[in-house]
Amino acid sequence: MQATVLHGERDIRFEDVTAPTIVKPTDAILRLSATCVCGSDLWPYRGIAPVAQPTPMGHEYCGVVEEVGSAVTSVKPGQFVIGSFFASDNTCPNCRAGYTTSCQHREGVGGAQAPLLRVPLADGTLVRTPGMPSNDMLPSLLTLSDVMSTGWFAAEAAAVQPGKTAVVVGDGAVGLLGVLSAKLMGAERIIAMSRHESRQKLARELGATDIVSERGDEGIARIKELTHGVGADSALECVGTQESMMQAIRSTRPGGHVGYVGVPHGVQLDGVELFFSHVHLHGGPAPARRFLPELIDMVWSGKINPGRVFDLTLPLSQVAEGYRAMDERRAIKALLQP
Amino acid sequence: MQATVLHGERDIRFEDVTAPTIVKPTDAILRLSATCVCGSDLWPYRGIAPVAQPTPMGHEYCGVVEEVGSAVTSVKPGQFVIGSFFASDNTCPNCRAGYTTSCQHREGVGGAQAPLLRVPLADGTLVRTPGMPSNDMLPSLLTLSDVMSTGWFAAEAAAVQPGKTAVVVGDGAVGLLGVLSAKLMGAERIIAMSRHESRQKLARELGATDIVSERGDEGIARIKELTHGVGADSALECVGTQESMMQAIRSTRPGGHVGYVGVPHGVQLDGVELFFSHVHLHGGPAPARRFLPELIDMVWSGKINPGRVFDLTLPLSQVAEGYRAMDERRAIKALLQP
Repeated sequence: MQATVLHGERDIRFEDVTAPTIVKPTDAILRLSATCVCGSDLWPYRGIAPVAQPTPMGHEYCGVVEEVGSAVTSVKPGQFVIGSFFASDNTCPNCRAGYTTSCQHREGVGGAQAPLLRVPLADGTLVRTPGMPSNDMLPSLLTLSDVMSTGWFAAEAAAVQPGKTAVVVGDGAVGLLGVLSAKLMGAERIIAMSRHESRQKLARELGATDIVSERGDEGIARIKELTHGVGADSALECVGTQESMMQAIRSTRPGGHVGYVGVPHGVQLDGVELFFSHVHLHGGPAPARRFLPELIDMVWSGKINPGRVFDLTLPLSQVAEGYRAMDERRAIKALLQP
Repeated sequence: MQATVLHGERDIRFEDVTAPTIVKPTDAILRLSATCVCGSDLWPYRGIAPVAQPTPMGHEYCGVVEEVGSAVTSVKPGQFVIGSFFASDNTCPNCRAGYTTSCQHREGVGGAQAPLLRVPLADGTLVRTPGMPSNDMLPSLLTLSDVMSTGWFAAEAAAVQPGKTAVVVGDGAVGLLGVLSAKLMGAERIIAMSRHESRQKLARELGATDIVSERGDEGIARIKELTHGVGADSALECVGTQESMMQAIRSTRPGGHVGYVGVPHGVQLDGVELFFSHVHLHGGPAPARRFLPELIDMVWSGKINPGRVFDLTLPLSQVAEGYRAMDERRAIKALLQP
């Protein structure tokens, strides 16, 4: 088959690779209905987190089970499933505590920008939909594999509460779905930090009540102005840089909560500043598996449509253009059709 | 009057100073019944946080109101009171949210290793006891001003829950009272990290079920062994060094909580490690004012006796020996009698 491989900085290729097969009895092979490019794929694409060797790309996926290993009992060929970007057994103490992405037997899922995908620990990783979805539901279901679950975790980790104020740092797809998640959790005021008109517009449509286009000290000053000098109850950090992390921490009131889901790059937190900030800090890789049943229900019933973050749809063979468009911020998120 | 002044590294003097007077109408002057040396006093004493000029020392206190400013309404001369180490108005949004040590009008309280003390914002800072305490209750009441409230906040910030496991990093007075706090909050297993026999003994008496004397990677391995490879539900960081902070974070299970109350010195947290640790992090200067009413009740009723951490009692004039004994770890905490 042909699939997506990163060979080096900005060198993404759609090329012949060996089709995946069952390796362990707990594996499943999926024929993907949709896949996409993640903001975190841009770190290696840009050479900031360089790859040591040609690397199959992609970790967001949904599709139809093609084949299962002999030990798999919860899904079978022909069923439509969604899975997390990390495989988990969903039975270990960390999984039972809700932290499936810290599963004691965690395995990365890779190579999902492809027609076929091997998913390890299928019973603990994949969740079936109630039936075969219509094509127009595919984008929203696809988001649950990572980006919507990550926005949801940002809001949960930031302890978003009904009637309270949440700031969302980052206007990428995760940040935009963080806005949607904060809205679903009842935040009364949702301040989206964004400098891009089209993203501001989508943020408003998803639930943002205020837009702050300033950054750094000016951005923090604006948040303080909007919150009577106190700061926000919750901040969702959806980028992963030092600047975005400090933006989130400094925008939060003492006793408030920062939920951070941007994969950190070069982030160092000063103990003294954190101490006197009095914020709660929680985050990490979103335990998407925990959220899948609830979020599938919300998509299936039409309550939410997180697939709106896809503003570019391409045939999988044009994956390189998807990376370019996101790298240049021409697209929020590119959906790929195998 | 004579009071305690730090002139430089290990140069603590009991010398003539001007007695405090009412400066603002919201002030009160207390005649102190007891005061003490704080672990955090050792940072400047040791020259790690050098003083720029001779500095009056002490911020833990209880005693009898001597005089109040014209605007003070909640306490009057002759009443016995305890106050927080930071003065707060107890009415601003941060105070109302429970974070009195982030009060928008916060002022430090200094110079409490003295017979008389000026306390700013008296109405928001001081809490009366039900009556005049007996002498044997003074040590326990004194701890509520800082050290017991700080141990209590460590346990609260670490979300200690009934039936769960808590690790306490640090066997100073704060750590020992963190053990007591975890016990009061119902932790089933309390692991105290300590290498000192006398402190191990007191930790056990206050509620520790296990002692771990190893530190660093070995200490973490021991905690993992004791928790079936998972880590503790809660960790109370009661020191403030890089080593103790990492000890706390790495001893905690994914999804668990780290409460940190040691004033950080040279602490830098790596974003990537924190991200993948999946811990909740919360801490800062303990909002003692919030805890005072509840903790006074517990001391007054005889339910708790946190004054047990004082293993050295000296006349105030011998304060320098109190510092030396704590610096050399000959004493856990020195009580000073004015």
